[in-house]
Amino acid sequence: MRMPQVVRQPGLPQRVTIYEVGPRDGLQNESTILPVGVKAEFVSRLVDAGLQAIEVTSFVRPSWVPQLADAEELIKAVDLGAVPRMPVLVPNRRGLERALEAGVREIAIFGSATETFAKRNLNSSLDDQFDMFEPVVAEALGAGLRVRAYLSMSFGDPWEGDVPVEQVVSVGRRLLRLGCSELSLGDTIGVGTPGQVAAVIGGFLGSGVDVGELAVHFHDTFGQALSNALTALRLGVTTFDASAGGLGGCPYAESATGNLATEDLVWQLSGLGIETGVDLESLVATTIWMSDKLGKRPESRVATVLS
Amino acid sequence: MRMPQVVRQPGLPQRVTIYEVGPRDGLQNESTILPVGVKAEFVSRLVDAGLQAIEVTSFVRPSWVPQLADAEELIKAVDLGAVPRMPVLVPNRRGLERALEAGVREIAIFGSATETFAKRNLNSSLDDQFDMFEPVVAEALGAGLRVRAYLSMSFGDPWEGDVPVEQVVSVGRRLLRLGCSELSLGDTIGVGTPGQVAAVIGGFLGSGVDVGELAVHFHDTFGQALSNALTALRLGVTTFDASAGGLGGCPYAESATGNLATEDLVWQLSGLGIETGVDLESLVATTIWMSDKLGKRPESRVATVLS
Repeated sequence: MRMPQVVRQPGLPQRVTIYEVGPRDGLQNESTILPVGVKAEFVSRLVDAGLQAIEVTSFVRPSWVPQLADAEELIKAVDLGAVPRMPVLVPNRRGLERALEAGVREIAIFGSATETFAKRNLNSSLDDQFDMFEPVVAEALGAGLRVRAYLSMSFGDPWEGDVPVEQVVSVGRRLLRLGCSELSLGDTIGVGTPGQVAAVIGGFLGSGVDVGELAVHFHDTFGQALSNALTALRLGVTTFDASAGGLGGCPYAESATGNLATEDLVWQLSGLGIETGVDLESLVATTIWMSDKLGKRPESRVATVLS
Repeated sequence: MRMPQVVRQPGLPQRVTIYEVGPRDGLQNESTILPVGVKAEFVSRLVDAGLQAIEVTSFVRPSWVPQLADAEELIKAVDLGAVPRMPVLVPNRRGLERALEAGVREIAIFGSATETFAKRNLNSSLDDQFDMFEPVVAEALGAGLRVRAYLSMSFGDPWEGDVPVEQVVSVGRRLLRLGCSELSLGDTIGVGTPGQVAAVIGGFLGSGVDVGELAVHFHDTFGQALSNALTALRLGVTTFDASAGGLGGCPYAESATGNLATEDLVWQLSGLGIETGVDLESLVATTIWMSDKLGKRPESRVATVLS
């Protein structure tokens, strides 16, 4: 299979972690509900493709996200120790209990950078979301789990429009202070551009946050995801959320396209000589296999051209 | 219509030129052959959307590219003085004669950076292509025309694989020395990544070429076009080829996707506060209108989400 020519650039990280969100953020936003066996095979194929961090599912209330209603069953069917990180999303205390029972070793919580999204997604205020997160994070840490925090709407909100950088930094730092070891800055509706990415990341670094605590989560709604990832890479970010085949739309916007596609990101990183551990051919085969299961064409450019 | 938040970055150009290739490079690679009136309206809509440089058609032999067989008729139907630049592609002396008769004020010639593509596309060798270009450029300049040169396969060749930077720079400089005022570096098969873009542009700048003489022409085959454009922008490039709706595939590769979509580029540049003169809403309306004429969905993310 064709691979990009490797031409390195000075000042970039030698190695980055791709945090694969296809099984959770991807499938959660697809209309097709897949059998648990297909999901387990998806995770297993992603492991075989070399992904080092894979978010497997969500312990959300099954009636809210029927696509992921089989979380317990799926966790039993996958090897949680196959790769260094295999977290699950946990929306609340009940979700954490289920996660602990299932034996997961890392959870992710899902915060909001804006009042409107906190209200709509969490039925909370921007401030009150912390009352919900605090006991969950404390208990998870007490049980020896690692905790990642998402900060959605970090680059724009569908109802509020622009989101002040100071607000994003303030809410994000509060999540880190709870004890989260990683903060994933989400452009949930995909509107951000490189200057904004630099401003938000710069805001965190300027307030004393270490770049190793930050991850970026870009959606390709307006075609900007890979450009924004490149901008974050130049600023030293080493954790990039992506979804095989660009799976998943954004349920909160008029979007037709989903997450940054893992294989398009891998093409760029491979061309820059940056290690990810991912085998592109195996990943593309996985994307094509999954697209077939969902009865749709892959969104990613790389899988489209190589399929 | 939603517009990106403006966050500038230091060191970027204040204003750039988008060189719209939809009517030529786009339509040439679409299977549908449109009536001349639709093409004229396409150009007129692009003018109204604020594009400052529009490549209208090609004076290639009609039997080679039936999509553009109506070049003379189209030129008569458009206002060549409506925007600062309205060039046509000219493959050879016969093409130049037709262009001069038609009254165009700028032509573009189409060179190859590799032996194999020179042989396949021009039936020439890498060296001998200059025998063909030299009299065309000399005569065009003598008639007061401006001449742009494309350099295709500057970032990879479907048959040869990697293309040495020195070879790209050497062939490109020969084109400039003929008297061409602009050299458009083409990633014809869309395989390039940011390190390579920096290396190729750096090669030209290091050999004394002024950055104002360079344009970049990226295809989105592997999803890298906008990232590569951002990389060129950071190096000071101020002319970007793009195609409304991402029209056009690559006839020389297994590609399913086309040029960098003008509206995805405009979104990024607008977010960076860089002027283009383009009205995004009007451009998106044009893309949707044209997609309808071609009976297909737009390739661009921006037009997809806003349509």
